[in-house]
Amino acid sequence: MQFITEPMSIEEKSFEIIAPHLKNLNLSAEEIKIYSRIIHAAGDVDYAPIIKISERAIQAGKSALERGANIFTDVEMVRTGINKRVLKKFGGEIFCKVADAEVKKIAVQNKITRSMAAMRLFGKNLNNSIVAIGNAPTALFEVLRLVREENISPALIIGVPVGFVGAADSKAQLAAQSKIPFVTVEGTKGGSPIAVSVVNALLYLLDNSRD
Amino acid sequence: MQFITEPMSIEEKSFEIIAPHLKNLNLSAEEIKIYSRIIHAAGDVDYAPIIKISERAIQAGKSALERGANIFTDVEMVRTGINKRVLKKFGGEIFCKVADAEVKKIAVQNKITRSMAAMRLFGKNLNNSIVAIGNAPTALFEVLRLVREENISPALIIGVPVGFVGAADSKAQLAAQSKIPFVTVEGTKGGSPIAVSVVNALLYLLDNSRD
Repeated sequence: MQFITEPMSIEEKSFEIIAPHLKNLNLSAEEIKIYSRIIHAAGDVDYAPIIKISERAIQAGKSALERGANIFTDVEMVRTGINKRVLKKFGGEIFCKVADAEVKKIAVQNKITRSMAAMRLFGKNLNNSIVAIGNAPTALFEVLRLVREENISPALIIGVPVGFVGAADSKAQLAAQSKIPFVTVEGTKGGSPIAVSVVNALLYLLDNSRD
Repeated sequence: MQFITEPMSIEEKSFEIIAPHLKNLNLSAEEIKIYSRIIHAAGDVDYAPIIKISERAIQAGKSALERGANIFTDVEMVRTGINKRVLKKFGGEIFCKVADAEVKKIAVQNKITRSMAAMRLFGKNLNNSIVAIGNAPTALFEVLRLVREENISPALIIGVPVGFVGAADSKAQLAAQSKIPFVTVEGTKGGSPIAVSVVNALLYLLDNSRD
């Protein structure tokens, strides 16, 4: 049996297969990279029409990463998937508090999810950072509340929570605001690999070396 | 704004929304749990008709986990997502070698992917284990080669690699063999959250306590 076993060839071949699904979307070269990596991560070309990237999002994300902005995420799977070797070159770190004892306590006391409590605890640390929500709609709702009510201002929100309860609403709310640059997908689809793929796509726009 | 913030309610509500999409598939109660968790993880009801669970798979997976079988996976995101608290109750551990220096060396020497080299290095440790492939088709091809050529015999293969190069073929090959019980999905979709959702669904069939 013959099959491609060289990682970069697999990626290139994959992006070639994805390309025809993007050609009517009027995308910039950088947008194509992000779309391709999302679709590659999900194995699902039906993502093409539902991806939403706000006008300043790519530049905002690249600039933030380049100056060593930190990444704040709702779940450990997102932290695991991000290319830490490249991120570290620029000085950024990734933070996830969902498993912290303090977060659990706040969640129980306030009858909110842990993902939500974690975002609340990050608070002002989210200023000028990259927020990557891959799982919990409640985390995204909380970040949007912090933006609206407490003047918190991330450089970029990558908001792709997944599921049938709140995810679509939280992402519609993200796309409806115009204060913070964002990347999102409409509807119920999303998940940690989608959040990871956007962060890594931005990193690879800055530094395409691979280990 | 009102939204559900209690994790178990979110899950129950989600499973209720998924239920109508499963009703014509003639599933057992345990199959419904696995299907629901996959669809919940992807936010995508289009998974319903493409999930394939072999006849003995659920029993084989439960028995293996219950007697403390280990889990071998291709990527760290799968290890991250599995509920280690519940797994540990039964004595199992999760192994992932993709980032090991030895694996990198074998991959370079043999011009194969690291995921493939990692599976080759696991070798006989895969006997009676649970193999969970969430990302790399080459890892699944290698496991199937070990089964075919080296008489390696996992208790269950959860094979849900994702993408446009090899994923569909590797999963078709998994579904075509009848020696090892399996869970898979047809086509290009899949990914670490799908692999995680199957493992966790099996764990929750054995122990539905949550922390």
